[in-house]
Amino acid sequence: VTSEGPLSWLPHPRKELSQFTPGDGVLTAPPLDDPLNTSAAALRRIIDALARTAPDGEHLPATSEQLLALADSLEKHTRPVPTQLFEMWQGEGIARHDPATGQENPMAPPLQLFDGGDGWAVGTVTLGLPYQGPPGNVHGGICALLLDAALAVANHLAGTNGMTAKLEMSYKRPTPLSVPLTVRSRQLSVDGRKRFTMGEIVADGEVTVSAQGLFIARRA
Amino acid sequence: VTSEGPLSWLPHPRKELSQFTPGDGVLTAPPLDDPLNTSAAALRRIIDALARTAPDGEHLPATSEQLLALADSLEKHTRPVPTQLFEMWQGEGIARHDPATGQENPMAPPLQLFDGGDGWAVGTVTLGLPYQGPPGNVHGGICALLLDAALAVANHLAGTNGMTAKLEMSYKRPTPLSVPLTVRSRQLSVDGRKRFTMGEIVADGEVTVSAQGLFIARRA
Repeated sequence: VTSEGPLSWLPHPRKELSQFTPGDGVLTAPPLDDPLNTSAAALRRIIDALARTAPDGEHLPATSEQLLALADSLEKHTRPVPTQLFEMWQGEGIARHDPATGQENPMAPPLQLFDGGDGWAVGTVTLGLPYQGPPGNVHGGICALLLDAALAVANHLAGTNGMTAKLEMSYKRPTPLSVPLTVRSRQLSVDGRKRFTMGEIVADGEVTVSAQGLFIARRA
Repeated sequence: VTSEGPLSWLPHPRKELSQFTPGDGVLTAPPLDDPLNTSAAALRRIIDALARTAPDGEHLPATSEQLLALADSLEKHTRPVPTQLFEMWQGEGIARHDPATGQENPMAPPLQLFDGGDGWAVGTVTLGLPYQGPPGNVHGGICALLLDAALAVANHLAGTNGMTAKLEMSYKRPTPLSVPLTVRSRQLSVDGRKRFTMGEIVADGEVTVSAQGLFIARRA
């Protein structure tokens, strides 16, 4: 596992970028109708259901045995990490695995972002109990995860990528669970290798969290 | 679901705080030997194994059917969100569900933090492919999630809580997957209702990411 290589600083592969032009829609990898995507979607439901389950539920012993058996079985079919790492960065690559936007990552809500015009990447997401920080509200670190991913997508939309150098999160009010949140981001300016990008989360018409990011492009 | 209530700004419940005094060890809720904790641990292995699986694996259709059936079954045993919200904030509460540190949250690695003396909360965590951002490295948003949680724990250790107002992340170098990372945090100072807290992630002896947080305590 190394951070080197031509794609080492790219949060999303070039091919993804080439797949859209401003105005034509989705900026994140769409769901596929295959068993891996179906499995990830089912796991999201399982994670959410467990968060809404009484810890002494009578069905839980059988559930835990089923899950342990499935884990044992799946671990027999895995590929070595270096092989998987190489393969997963081909094609749509990490866009499918990203912990914020990846359809194939059960931890990702997933956040889907669309071209909102005028340089904006925009999406809507509703988060359940697994994403909780303070009671009834989204964890501040989950807000940072979503915005970090959204800023990277806005950079792609602008056509100038970079690696995150700084991310300044400003928490203005609680971000509620269980209601639709708008996540939007856009690149503000470019100064040499520096890209300045912002994003925010909006609930019920009010900005709850904003982010300012500084990204540095690789030397040519 | 509301952000109001006596615990609305607390990332961890009071009882957790009362359970330790400086010097006596673990600052995050330890794993329990029960089916819910076992299920969460098994789900972590499943999520990790799927990230290391070829998307065309022949076992995946059966896996997806098993997971869908399990999701259907578990959703029949859930409690209403308001009931669950109330219950989950009793006792150790959110400490068990936190998306960064919660033993019962399958998305959490989970990060366990200990009293490192001199005000430091310290823990070690190794992250696999589900937490990937750039190839072979941890997602910047996941670093923010871990540090946001670690700063909250450092505030608890210092005995002065607050709600996150600002979080400034500085990414100095890539944070590698698959190697042990040290996460450490401590409160720096208190000025009225303001608490200034810092944290960092260390890999191979070098700081990869640092965070500075400003937290605001509730009015008395």
